[in-house]
Amino acid sequence: MQFRNFKMVGYTVYGRGSFNQLDEILEPNRKNNLPMIFLLDHFFKDKDLVNRIPLKGNDKLIFADVTYEPKTTYVDKIASELKEEFGSVSGVIGIGGGSTLDLAKAVSLMMTNHGSSADYQGWDLVKVKGVYKAGIPTLSGTGAEVSRTTVLTGPEKKLGMNSDFTPFDQILLDPELTANVPKEQRFYTGMDCYIHCIESLQGTFLNEFSKSYGEKALQLCREVFVEKNKWDKESDDKLMMASYAGGMSIAYSQVGVAHAISYGLSYLLGTKHGIGNCIVFNQLDEYYPEGVKEFKSMVERNEIHIPQNVCSGLTEEQFDKMIDVSLGMKPLWENALGPDWQKIMTRNKLKALYKKL
Amino acid sequence: MQFRNFKMVGYTVYGRGSFNQLDEILEPNRKNNLPMIFLLDHFFKDKDLVNRIPLKGNDKLIFADVTYEPKTTYVDKIASELKEEFGSVSGVIGIGGGSTLDLAKAVSLMMTNHGSSADYQGWDLVKVKGVYKAGIPTLSGTGAEVSRTTVLTGPEKKLGMNSDFTPFDQILLDPELTANVPKEQRFYTGMDCYIHCIESLQGTFLNEFSKSYGEKALQLCREVFVEKNKWDKESDDKLMMASYAGGMSIAYSQVGVAHAISYGLSYLLGTKHGIGNCIVFNQLDEYYPEGVKEFKSMVERNEIHIPQNVCSGLTEEQFDKMIDVSLGMKPLWENALGPDWQKIMTRNKLKALYKKL
Repeated sequence: MQFRNFKMVGYTVYGRGSFNQLDEILEPNRKNNLPMIFLLDHFFKDKDLVNRIPLKGNDKLIFADVTYEPKTTYVDKIASELKEEFGSVSGVIGIGGGSTLDLAKAVSLMMTNHGSSADYQGWDLVKVKGVYKAGIPTLSGTGAEVSRTTVLTGPEKKLGMNSDFTPFDQILLDPELTANVPKEQRFYTGMDCYIHCIESLQGTFLNEFSKSYGEKALQLCREVFVEKNKWDKESDDKLMMASYAGGMSIAYSQVGVAHAISYGLSYLLGTKHGIGNCIVFNQLDEYYPEGVKEFKSMVERNEIHIPQNVCSGLTEEQFDKMIDVSLGMKPLWENALGPDWQKIMTRNKLKALYKKL
Repeated sequence: MQFRNFKMVGYTVYGRGSFNQLDEILEPNRKNNLPMIFLLDHFFKDKDLVNRIPLKGNDKLIFADVTYEPKTTYVDKIASELKEEFGSVSGVIGIGGGSTLDLAKAVSLMMTNHGSSADYQGWDLVKVKGVYKAGIPTLSGTGAEVSRTTVLTGPEKKLGMNSDFTPFDQILLDPELTANVPKEQRFYTGMDCYIHCIESLQGTFLNEFSKSYGEKALQLCREVFVEKNKWDKESDDKLMMASYAGGMSIAYSQVGVAHAISYGLSYLLGTKHGIGNCIVFNQLDEYYPEGVKEFKSMVERNEIHIPQNVCSGLTEEQFDKMIDVSLGMKPLWENALGPDWQKIMTRNKLKALYKKL
């Protein structure tokens, strides 16, 4: 099809305190006494949120270790342990940042699809609906709550299980849950949304659907990171909508140079997506002059530290590996630089960029 | 639940020329050789679009008579004729303005629910999923493509079948289809979106979800009706997104004075929704001073005629009937004027407003 037929999330609830409705929302989705599995970001291990999870009967709470972004081996391990313990489950509920949400989507799919999640890294390889899945972001910016992917690091590649079966059946957007995010983390993840909007709005792939969402997301990012003088409840409300709108804008757009370079970085060094994008975008004046200027002013205004010299001491082989991974992201480069991107972004040019990081 | 859990449309495709993908999109939804039913706005009776409908096998094309907004009796008639002819159908595809889209949703539901559609006018009365349904707008502004209602005029009331089973399984947004809408009609329907945004953004029910969508819709309306100097393809693209965003903003917001008064008008006189809202809004300086000022400038700029004196010659009984219908729209009044709205909007005050129209 020329235009993607975009599978939407099934149900959306948005509101301060809407987390209190979770039990009621899950109830009709409990099947045959099978448990609901709550995958909670390990950040909340000793936080109050643990006590608010509406556990019932044989429900299970698993703390998701998201020290690193989710690996296919981790997805496979959780899914096979759940199958062993319960046979099947009523559903999987992800509560956390983008990594936890992606993990929940992938585990849901691997409860019904055979083999390893690595077999499904790519486009439309998943052929069977997963179990019921719900996503509850506690961090705003990734757009993972509405995307049709789950970014996974596999044995061979960092690539999602992109399919119509991947989006959540339910998302619950409660900005109260983001109130205690550490300031630097909030900034890095918020910038994932900001950078992605700059890349998509300035890209060569775009239509009015994605433009409308992208412009709105960008405006909301500016309201919270540029215009407002202090962080308050309204900031959390707005950044949660920025993340949602940024995720929706992906439907008919693509990210660009920052994401392509940052993928290489995170593949080799395990740099997390939000901070990785910031490290890269900070050096992209040549490609996104106005966006980078505004980014730097937001960094200053919000008193954020962006790491530098992260590639110092890497070997030639390591640079080559990052370049291989990055140049593999063809649609991103084409969106950013047009059909002749390979003439513009040579290996040498890209190596020089990595050396600047 | 405190916050509505909003059922989303299943699939969305947006793009110029995406109508050409309709056959491919419908294919997996054809069941047991049962036909697809295309409900096409009678406006297209002798237009080229008729020849582009992907009819196959025993599919049926019905021209929807939307001279008046859909009545429950019309919905029931179409559904019972289809049941008599085919037993069941694979799906119902509405192609047209808001009336045709609402008709398609209602017919889909009445293929599986017993009795009359009038039995289901209200909130969450529909208990059974309808047949597959798809909506293809050919006119932008109503938001019917994403709403969970179908506005129907019944024997006793004008009220929708509001339910989680009401939203479309698929919407196809192809701005090319709106290219030949007559200028006045385009304006009236576009103003449905504009007026609804003014009412919801200025209302007392609102959260950041609805605000984000409402602001975007309003901005897109302004771009096409205020800023651009001539109507072009981009205008059609933008107004189609304004309609979609305006419809989404309804999730956690409510319309206000203009809609409440216009419902009475259309109940009594059959005035269509778009033009009815314009006739009313034109006189609401007291409630929406800035919005009405901008509206009047758009009327002038776009060289549109807004009818006046539409209530002259009505009897006292007729005024009473309109007032009864209008004051019955309690949530609209509360959103606009707060919990004490009944002290503000008395029968006399409302009668004076109707007399001005």
